[in-house]
Amino acid sequence: MVYVTRRETFAAAHRLYIPGKSDSENEKIFGKCSNPNWHGHNYTLEVVVRGKPEVETGFVIDIKVLKEIIRERVINKVDHKNLNIETDFMKGIIPTSENITMAIWNQLNDKIPSGELYSVKLYETENNYFEYKGE
Amino acid sequence: MVYVTRRETFAAAHRLYIPGKSDSENEKIFGKCSNPNWHGHNYTLEVVVRGKPEVETGFVIDIKVLKEIIRERVINKVDHKNLNIETDFMKGIIPTSENITMAIWNQLNDKIPSGELYSVKLYETENNYFEYKGE
Amino acid sequence: MVYVTRRETFAAAHRLYIPGKSDSENEKIFGKCSNPNWHGHNYTLEVVVRGKPEVETGFVIDIKVLKEIIRERVINKVDHKNLNIETDFMKGIIPTSENITMAIWNQLNDKIPSGELYSVKLYETENNYFEYKGE
Amino acid sequence: MVYVTRRETFAAAHRLYIPGKSDSENEKIFGKCSNPNWHGHNYTLEVVVRGKPEVETGFVIDIKVLKEIIRERVINKVDHKNLNIETDFMKGIIPTSENITMAIWNQLNDKIPSGELYSVKLYETENNYFEYKGE
Amino acid sequence: MVYVTRRETFAAAHRLYIPGKSDSENEKIFGKCSNPNWHGHNYTLEVVVRGKPEVETGFVIDIKVLKEIIRERVINKVDHKNLNIETDFMKGIIPTSENITMAIWNQLNDKIPSGELYSVKLYETENNYFEYKGE
Amino acid sequence: MVYVTRRETFAAAHRLYIPGKSDSENEKIFGKCSNPNWHGHNYTLEVVVRGKPEVETGFVIDIKVLKEIIRERVINKVDHKNLNIETDFMKGIIPTSENITMAIWNQLNDKIPSGELYSVKLYETENNYFEYKGE
Repeated sequence: MVYVTRRETFAAAHRLYIPGKSDSENEKIFGKCSNPNWHGHNYTLEVVVRGKPEVETGFVIDIKVLKEIIRERVINKVDHKNLNIETDFMKGIIPTSENITMAIWNQLNDKIPSGELYSVKLYETENNYFEYKGE
Repeated sequence: MVYVTRRETFAAAHRLYIPGKSDSENEKIFGKCSNPNWHGHNYTLEVVVRGKPEVETGFVIDIKVLKEIIRERVINKVDHKNLNIETDFMKGIIPTSENITMAIWNQLNDKIPSGELYSVKLYETENNYFEYKGE
Repeated sequence: MVYVTRRETFAAAHRLYIPGKSDSENEKIFGKCSNPNWHGHNYTLEVVVRGKPEVETGFVIDIKVLKEIIRERVINKVDHKNLNIETDFMKGIIPTSENITMAIWNQLNDKIPSGELYSVKLYETENNYFEYKGE
Repeated sequence: MVYVTRRETFAAAHRLYIPGKSDSENEKIFGKCSNPNWHGHNYTLEVVVRGKPEVETGFVIDIKVLKEIIRERVINKVDHKNLNIETDFMKGIIPTSENITMAIWNQLNDKIPSGELYSVKLYETENNYFEYKGE
Repeated sequence: MVYVTRRETFAAAHRLYIPGKSDSENEKIFGKCSNPNWHGHNYTLEVVVRGKPEVETGFVIDIKVLKEIIRERVINKVDHKNLNIETDFMKGIIPTSENITMAIWNQLNDKIPSGELYSVKLYETENNYFEYKGE
Repeated sequence: MVYVTRRETFAAAHRLYIPGKSDSENEKIFGKCSNPNWHGHNYTLEVVVRGKPEVETGFVIDIKVLKEIIRERVINKVDHKNLNIETDFMKGIIPTSENITMAIWNQLNDKIPSGELYSVKLYETENNYFEYKGE
């Protein structure tokens, strides 16, 4: 079994808040991340696919194909977008990195043509990152 | 003369558009960077101060002091903010990285207690960065 | 289950030696790392907490809280310190990166208010790093 | 149990192709990676050894010894070499990163004097990397 | 004047040798870089354009346009290619990084639609890089 | 003229203090950097040599030669050493990064066999770096 990782980046705006709570209540919970005027990040995404290399080609997955799937199912829906307003797969979900990571997993799971999705890792900043393995 | 660089980071939202032009005209000029729903970045800022090290201390500038000046004059006004709406020193300025870099120069110039401001460098992404030297 | 990682850095001095052995015996075992006049590193620390995101907030752990715990329990005791002489939780322990990593685990374990400590990773240089998962 | 990682780099040329297939068939499968005139990469290799730190020294493995083993068994055979033509342990194997990673595992397994080989990770580019754990 | 930098990467094969000298003479001069079976690198290229931001747009140059010029004039001619054999602008030039850097300058100079080319920087490895400013 | 950069790293201990001043006076000036029990860093050093590529070889300087000079004149005297006590070229000099950078310049200047020394850059941490150009 080999673990194949593809790294992509995207830039997005977001805001953390619980609908139905006031701005000041949200600020108590989320601090400056609840700024009603938005803020944003350069996110780095790493997608790991696990599988046995095919004997003839030596590939677990053609990484160009993996890249296309990630772009179509994820990057095109989040890059230079507002995650709260514009990203269909984040509808009704607070865009914490934990939740974004799990939502990206759901976007990719069962869409991988060879091998299987093993992990989705999301760097929000150089100091904070998040991983989900479908557990 | 020694060049002393301090690196800081901040996360912000922005949108590129020329007021008075329609969204579709702005999109022709700025592409996805003109998204009316905002997007954002993790910016990396490098501030370079040039000077002769003081004989007794061996410092051009106490880097803790430089860090405080950068935080007070810049980071506190941009981190987790919307650069178009909330940052006083960006009022009326299109927040391209070129313009942000020059505006940060103006925030810091003449505020450096020893040595002199030599350069302001701003990384918008890992692939695009911008430098201004007051020329 | 989401894995949340917080990265911190610190700078410290240390020396590898076995008390009761001579300097030349220690040099045979530890090479230049046993220099009696000390040497030092910029260490990078990554702390991983694992848990289910809370439904209301979407957080496994408030990363500001995690950062404060790491600073209070670890960084304040090691940053700009001598690990052999000044760090209470390293008393009587040879400060190899293996041992520092395990000692940091002990400093943090059972101190995490939500989720559970999953891994402590310590980069001694860009080429050497160490991980402990409590096994 | 502590996981000790040593990072090394090497530069090599390679070409992906299935002998017996034409250049144009190979290009259909491998794209520009099948260029008959070769291309190359700066590969980054991370080797992870897992074990209990020895009580007296606090080492899982002397990392200078680990480095020497990696250099002798791997780096000397791949650095500034053509992986298809010159690397003995790649004879008859298509040099996809999946296959290189598994071949490096075989070069190192049972050669580690303390602790045990846990993982071999190979970065082909900053965006694509591969890991093998002997499973 | 603002300095705008665009970063791109490419992977290529090359060999350093002086035609008319024997392999062993070339090895004396270039060491392992003269390997007749080729080797390769992941090169990182940084192109710096200097100019005054246009008042209306705040751009020195539209970085999407800069990226397209770099791709068309440079990346398409070097990525996954053999620099000695396949790259037209390297014909008859020994592909040292010094020479590649100057040749890339010549590919880009006078092709920049706004601002002017200021510098071309080429990273051959993480430890060796090269810059040319047209002097 | 091409600018050739070689990057090296070293780990060292140091302490900032003015002899003749008390520990508490030194702490007022240098903060935690004056800790009498030392602290240390992984320093990254970049040495830039400027010159015209030699026509026959395409080299400004053989980078293997440059590396040897840097190792002999600098790295061997600082790596895993105490900069205050053990480094001959730092005798009587407060080891601020400003001063180390200038002292390394003096160690290398007039020792470069082809091209000329242009700049010495020293990263003390990922956030603080220093450059000297002999001005």
